[in-house]
Amino acid sequence: MTSVQHFSAQWLPAIEATLRRQLAGGPPEAQGMYAMMRYHMGWEDALGQPEQAPQGKRVRPLVVLMACLAAGGAPEQALPAAAAVELVHNFSLIHDDIEDGSPTRRHRATLWTLAGQPQAINAGDAMFTLARLALLGLGEAGVADAKVLRCLHLFDRTCLHLTEGQYQDMSFETRPHVTPAEYLVMIAGKTAALLAASAQLGALVASEDVAASEHYWRFGHELGLSFQVQDDILGIWGDEALTGKSAASDILTRKKTLPVLYALAQPGPDGEALREIYASAADLEADDLPTILRLLDRLGARSHAEAAAGTHAAAALAALEAAGGGSEGTALLRELALALLGRQT
Amino acid sequence: MTSVQHFSAQWLPAIEATLRRQLAGGPPEAQGMYAMMRYHMGWEDALGQPEQAPQGKRVRPLVVLMACLAAGGAPEQALPAAAAVELVHNFSLIHDDIEDGSPTRRHRATLWTLAGQPQAINAGDAMFTLARLALLGLGEAGVADAKVLRCLHLFDRTCLHLTEGQYQDMSFETRPHVTPAEYLVMIAGKTAALLAASAQLGALVASEDVAASEHYWRFGHELGLSFQVQDDILGIWGDEALTGKSAASDILTRKKTLPVLYALAQPGPDGEALREIYASAADLEADDLPTILRLLDRLGARSHAEAAAGTHAAAALAALEAAGGGSEGTALLRELALALLGRQT
Repeated sequence: MTSVQHFSAQWLPAIEATLRRQLAGGPPEAQGMYAMMRYHMGWEDALGQPEQAPQGKRVRPLVVLMACLAAGGAPEQALPAAAAVELVHNFSLIHDDIEDGSPTRRHRATLWTLAGQPQAINAGDAMFTLARLALLGLGEAGVADAKVLRCLHLFDRTCLHLTEGQYQDMSFETRPHVTPAEYLVMIAGKTAALLAASAQLGALVASEDVAASEHYWRFGHELGLSFQVQDDILGIWGDEALTGKSAASDILTRKKTLPVLYALAQPGPDGEALREIYASAADLEADDLPTILRLLDRLGARSHAEAAAGTHAAAALAALEAAGGGSEGTALLRELALALLGRQT
Repeated sequence: MTSVQHFSAQWLPAIEATLRRQLAGGPPEAQGMYAMMRYHMGWEDALGQPEQAPQGKRVRPLVVLMACLAAGGAPEQALPAAAAVELVHNFSLIHDDIEDGSPTRRHRATLWTLAGQPQAINAGDAMFTLARLALLGLGEAGVADAKVLRCLHLFDRTCLHLTEGQYQDMSFETRPHVTPAEYLVMIAGKTAALLAASAQLGALVASEDVAASEHYWRFGHELGLSFQVQDDILGIWGDEALTGKSAASDILTRKKTLPVLYALAQPGPDGEALREIYASAADLEADDLPTILRLLDRLGARSHAEAAAGTHAAAALAALEAAGGGSEGTALLRELALALLGRQT
């Protein structure tokens, strides 16, 4: 068992218990709304019966607790923040699924397909609110008022950053030209901001050293960027048997990810050929794949993306080093980062 | 000029400036999202050009400042809370309009009809977050940490209450039977909760006397209930020339409001006749109105609703009395309450 596996086995039950406590309440007249949220979390089926559906990996709450430990605090005290980041992540998934019209998530029907869009929008709003109420629980966990307020500021600025990233991501769909630089700004909000906040929240709970907490923010930010770019690589060149997604699915849907945007921005005939394919109105078929993959290869798309992922991964580890935290928590964060970046699924 | 008009003239510019500051920021790449929010607020047209569209009456922020004054504080200090309640009110309108499929609000196209549902959901989430960030501004306005945290707790519990009320309201549409008691619980969340919180927030900013602040909460709660029931009465028996809505529009749409729910719950042949009309699948026409209005009259629907509005209004004024605040602020809140309850539009 690795140290991360050991830490997860130790803390996941407390994380789950804190999350469930947040969604257990509610007045009798609004129980249906709380059941919707529990369905989304994978704890209940559509009829409100307990089930154990596939859940997320709880990466963000684990990062909160590990960063708290690294910065010299007791993970126990950071549990309300761990619950808050997981709830806000799930709130954003509920609304994203509506915004994208996604029918399934984690192999189950998305909430809006069962409850309708109006009730699902509202249940998302409720989960967003419960995330903040969870964070306010830091006070009851004995965290000093000034620290709680620091965490609330960071949390709300992060939520705003999430909406800004989501705005950009949706606006990319209707824009013909998106640059790699714009893409990196977008994923900084949509993917990296919450991981960055998770690491910093743990550090802010642990210590008064706000400057050190910013290194933890940077660690999560760079890790999030690296993770997303690696996700982009897997979406094109990943092993179908490992990712569970059909190979090159991101190509067929013309998804604007870093390798593609990089290739589309290259001058010369290969870039021109790719731009023509991406600009055409015709659906892409499996037959088109060899041509597109050859163009991406000749334009250096994969090696550019791999280099970018590597650069951000190195920056994450350097930021962790600079934070100068305790050896146990720092080792856990490093191991978790390497595990996330070494994944093939 | 009444005292309320004088107070409004004095404070509305500062309220507007605080609101505009919240929506003025944002990074270059997300300016489109901030423009959506400014459009919703009536400050810009669909092309982002300044306009002066009809806005809300800013009742909630005025209540915050008046309650702050009544509880012995300086209204200036409560401006961040005043902006927060107005922003959360407008966030809820953005999402309500999507949930209800409403094409217009305040004589303008609703945000989702211009920006599409996905971007409007996300812009609503952003405004919700900006409301919280506005409230955190209390700290910069010199309010002590413990007070700020008290305000944040109240604010988030209120937001949760809003989603619970909205859940109920939407679920009523698909339910054949709704009792008057259920209706009052729903409007306590959907309409009264934010007015109650507005009054209590002002008091919490002003003073450490949490017990007194609860009287202000009760004042806003009872005022909100009375206001909504009066709105129900106007929706059926209001003067078309004054309300701007076609007379009896709430009847033709079979809206489940207190007078109707009360009448539907009455035993006997008149109640039975009304139940049959409301249960039928056929559209209601203007021809049906005289019969329905006669049944409502014979069942005592209007007098029941008027009595309920009066009871809640009296309870609001009694709570204000019990709060024992300063004479100037208390007189303003009383005058505002009476003006709201005496309205015919």
